[in-house]
Amino acid sequence: MENLDRFLEIAHKLADAARPVVRKYYRTPVAVDVKADDSPVTIADREVERTMRDILNAELPDHGILGEEHGRENVDAEYVWVLDPIDGTKSFISGKPSFATLIALCHNGKPVMGLIDQAITDERWVGVMGQPSTMNGTEISARECETLASATFFTTAPELFRDKAFDAYQAVSKQSRVAMYGVDAYAYGLTALGLADTVVEIGLQAYDFCALVPVVEGAGGVMTDWSGKELTIESAGDVVASGDARCHAEVLATIKSAMA
Amino acid sequence: MENLDRFLEIAHKLADAARPVVRKYYRTPVAVDVKADDSPVTIADREVERTMRDILNAELPDHGILGEEHGRENVDAEYVWVLDPIDGTKSFISGKPSFATLIALCHNGKPVMGLIDQAITDERWVGVMGQPSTMNGTEISARECETLASATFFTTAPELFRDKAFDAYQAVSKQSRVAMYGVDAYAYGLTALGLADTVVEIGLQAYDFCALVPVVEGAGGVMTDWSGKELTIESAGDVVASGDARCHAEVLATIKSAMA
Repeated sequence: MENLDRFLEIAHKLADAARPVVRKYYRTPVAVDVKADDSPVTIADREVERTMRDILNAELPDHGILGEEHGRENVDAEYVWVLDPIDGTKSFISGKPSFATLIALCHNGKPVMGLIDQAITDERWVGVMGQPSTMNGTEISARECETLASATFFTTAPELFRDKAFDAYQAVSKQSRVAMYGVDAYAYGLTALGLADTVVEIGLQAYDFCALVPVVEGAGGVMTDWSGKELTIESAGDVVASGDARCHAEVLATIKSAMA
Repeated sequence: MENLDRFLEIAHKLADAARPVVRKYYRTPVAVDVKADDSPVTIADREVERTMRDILNAELPDHGILGEEHGRENVDAEYVWVLDPIDGTKSFISGKPSFATLIALCHNGKPVMGLIDQAITDERWVGVMGQPSTMNGTEISARECETLASATFFTTAPELFRDKAFDAYQAVSKQSRVAMYGVDAYAYGLTALGLADTVVEIGLQAYDFCALVPVVEGAGGVMTDWSGKELTIESAGDVVASGDARCHAEVLATIKSAMA
């Protein structure tokens, strides 16, 4: 794998370019379309992704791009950028600054670099495989949390879990010390900062989770799918992220038992 | 009732004094105690409230004070200040900037002035009876939302509702266009900004809701208890706030039907 330094520079360039567009539309009356999967999209999502794609096409024409709003380009390339211009569009539309721009770089399908950028609170998390994660340039680390019973657990909304998956969410929620809601990718950032312990979600797309993996793991945490498998660009989108591997194992076991 | 201008100046003084204390402890490892009602409290909560009480005792010695952490002083006075130094202590502890300092002034038990202050995002909502509400000095207004089916609905966490109240929450959640979670008093601020439509909560204390009423109502919204009654310092703590009276009436009817 090539040296990642140049790619990280470009990742920052993407996030820097995204910010003014996000800010321009924040808390303004933007038209909301509803996509085939019933999720909302705004002109802000589309314009932010277009802005980032233009930079990538100019700087790294051999790289692939998988984005939430404008589809796939050259996704069989060795390096593929995975972009979610606004993760948490519902939060964005409601003027709640917990949405984020997510920028990931995958190498042969594995996330090796991730940025979580919050344009309103001015927070940028960076994770690079094999390096300590940072928030606004300062090294961060997850905290110890030996058991789910002592964990602060985050998820976005109970409605996102169906059938057996709802049972799994409920089991984790009930066994945690405290269950908190509603903050999209920001919850993974809090886990990497050592302020939360575990996040469980389902139904995510590659652009929702690829950027999170290097951030969480570079802070000493663990992030896998619900069966404990490594997340790749091809993963189905059921994810668990934890700051402490012991708590992670207990969450996985709790899910397994509830799904049985 | 006396002219409220001087009291509003003092309310701003309280919020200004609270901010540096909140910021000093934000995202630092503060010790967390658990209170009799199982809710967490930190040194930050106690110190912020102490700071505000000292100002009130000096400036308005005849006024009463009801605070979350340091109890009641002279609460039979004509004017009583109702203080929640950090509403959303769980969010505060998790480093999520949706907590707020809540400052209310009640006149003969009725909330006539309210401030919602977010020290990290630098946002301050002000509501004064008979005046338009403001956020950071700019007039704000709630938006039209004729039906619950078109409403963005907020609540903090499903776990806070029990038994019949859980049925009521579920009915409102299912009939809303979108259900969102997790932002404490901030959700009422979003409603006053015209970015959300209805908030339903239960089990609140006077210091959790008194400050919200003038903000929501001064933005053209409505805020009552679950039976539609006016909220006073004595109310039980089941609340609904809506930007549009038509949606509010539908939420109340939905709750009533689910509780029957």
